[in-house]
Amino acid sequence: MKIAIDAMGGDHAPKEIVLGAMRAINEYKDIHITLVGDESKIKQYVTSAERIEILHTEEVILPTDEPVRAVRRKKTASMVLAAQQVADGQADACISAGNTGALMAAGLFVVGRIEGIERPALSPTLPTIGGEGFLLLDVGANVDAKPEHLLQYAIMGSIYAEKVRGVSNPRIGLLNIGTEEKKGNELAKNAFELLQQANIHFIGNVEARDLLDGVADVVVTDGFTGNMVLKTIEGTALSVFKMMKTALTSSFKSKMAAAVLKPDLVQLKSKMDYSEYGGAGLFGLKAPVIKAHGSSDANAIFSAIRQTRNMVENSVSQTIKEAVEKEASK
Amino acid sequence: MKIAIDAMGGDHAPKEIVLGAMRAINEYKDIHITLVGDESKIKQYVTSAERIEILHTEEVILPTDEPVRAVRRKKTASMVLAAQQVADGQADACISAGNTGALMAAGLFVVGRIEGIERPALSPTLPTIGGEGFLLLDVGANVDAKPEHLLQYAIMGSIYAEKVRGVSNPRIGLLNIGTEEKKGNELAKNAFELLQQANIHFIGNVEARDLLDGVADVVVTDGFTGNMVLKTIEGTALSVFKMMKTALTSSFKSKMAAAVLKPDLVQLKSKMDYSEYGGAGLFGLKAPVIKAHGSSDANAIFSAIRQTRNMVENSVSQTIKEAVEKEASK
Repeated sequence: MKIAIDAMGGDHAPKEIVLGAMRAINEYKDIHITLVGDESKIKQYVTSAERIEILHTEEVILPTDEPVRAVRRKKTASMVLAAQQVADGQADACISAGNTGALMAAGLFVVGRIEGIERPALSPTLPTIGGEGFLLLDVGANVDAKPEHLLQYAIMGSIYAEKVRGVSNPRIGLLNIGTEEKKGNELAKNAFELLQQANIHFIGNVEARDLLDGVADVVVTDGFTGNMVLKTIEGTALSVFKMMKTALTSSFKSKMAAAVLKPDLVQLKSKMDYSEYGGAGLFGLKAPVIKAHGSSDANAIFSAIRQTRNMVENSVSQTIKEAVEKEASK
Repeated sequence: MKIAIDAMGGDHAPKEIVLGAMRAINEYKDIHITLVGDESKIKQYVTSAERIEILHTEEVILPTDEPVRAVRRKKTASMVLAAQQVADGQADACISAGNTGALMAAGLFVVGRIEGIERPALSPTLPTIGGEGFLLLDVGANVDAKPEHLLQYAIMGSIYAEKVRGVSNPRIGLLNIGTEEKKGNELAKNAFELLQQANIHFIGNVEARDLLDGVADVVVTDGFTGNMVLKTIEGTALSVFKMMKTALTSSFKSKMAAAVLKPDLVQLKSKMDYSEYGGAGLFGLKAPVIKAHGSSDANAIFSAIRQTRNMVENSVSQTIKEAVEKEASK
């Protein structure tokens, strides 16, 4: 199996990207990695020549670049070439920690949609109290979604949860303002009806306040709402930790007690860190395209590679294609 | 000034509702309160006959009642009679900690909209790290909003922040998936243009992850998205506190240290408790209608009464009416 990695994307590129790739190469003997980017900057971190190669390019897409324009104009950017490797059959999947919008554009224009999928969805796995996590889709690939898109998200999410995360008969929830049927805006009401008839384990509406309790394995919503929920979880957790830090350093006595608790508190913080669950998949494309968090360290990149390997090994894209065809022929 | 209070709404009614009212009566010599509900259950908590009266009724709206139907059929329910007091000019404002949907319906059908306001908005003040709080509207009165509704929310929110919360020249933000102009779904893009032309201090798009940092004083969005953000903040904060509790009681050593920190941690939790900021206003009605949190204790009810008194004293409804007329005549 071959995985192409944009070595220049993310806050800690190329160092952490390359270190993560090296770890994966050692761990998984069945993968081959192509690192795409500036060879002179990459090779200092490459510690083995086995099953690893560098595809040299000096062009990069910046975090501030306008996504669609950047992908169209910077045809030799590391991210675009990584996607091109997939399109050309040189790689089975690709990963980038760079500009999210640009990766979505590269996925769409270079790798291409699965026939029958109307809109790809960006889908991170988010933390739950119990540690099992839940898949949220879409978080921003498609901000003006239609009910049919949400149905496809549910099918794709169900396949991913089952094949890659090992959840049998995954519980699919529709994010809504209340749990009762007939709740919500037009989109949610219409999506509810479609989801009820689909060949998935639909458990009905779920509320945002219950997400981290693990109320569902897969939660579907439109990209605008999903993006808000994702960023609200991030922002609230960060704010609570910031306030905790202030509270626990407010006096000498607090500082002493906090020092004792530090390992517990660090562990708590890492529990809320969703990069532990791998990157966000861009589902609905012909091959897996994975967005690692911009702040990814070697560990997060390793998780993203493991996840990508699972997706390829379990033929997630092919299974999605067949399920969508089946649903369409109903 | 006369305030009508639904004494039977909320998890701790009537006891905590009545105790909150008694505290307000003692604190503010210019208010008169009408407690609406079952006299036999209310009067045991009434400790003074001064400026307080009971309007007896045995009918109540339950949390599980379908809102619109309940308001239409249970015409003598405590919540409906409290709203009726306002409609009849017997009270200047009303408060309930009961069924949110029913209170929105009672506000709309019994108290009535300000002429020119297309949709009322439900607007809680949420916590920020700095303690100043921000107003979020709408959180669910209107789940299929149009750009013009968001413009009216911004005007109403600006007036409330200035008149009641004492923020001069309040910063109005539009909740969106990125801070750049032209971001977002159709609704956000169109609302952006309207907000730019309005007579308010519009600071552009704000992201969900920055809300608790106090990025804006007033944040506008549609009721579906606002409801998700509100409940995600609640759910995430609760989950982090739950996980913290587990972490801090994991060993004898942790327990001892946590005991030292308890006052700091309790204070931290109360900082995230938005009932401290009063109830959620239902803006755009002819008179103030305030939704106190369902779990309100006497303290939260007292805060809601103080807030309601501020709204009446500062003629918020009248000011909104004039501002909307002015905007319409542009």
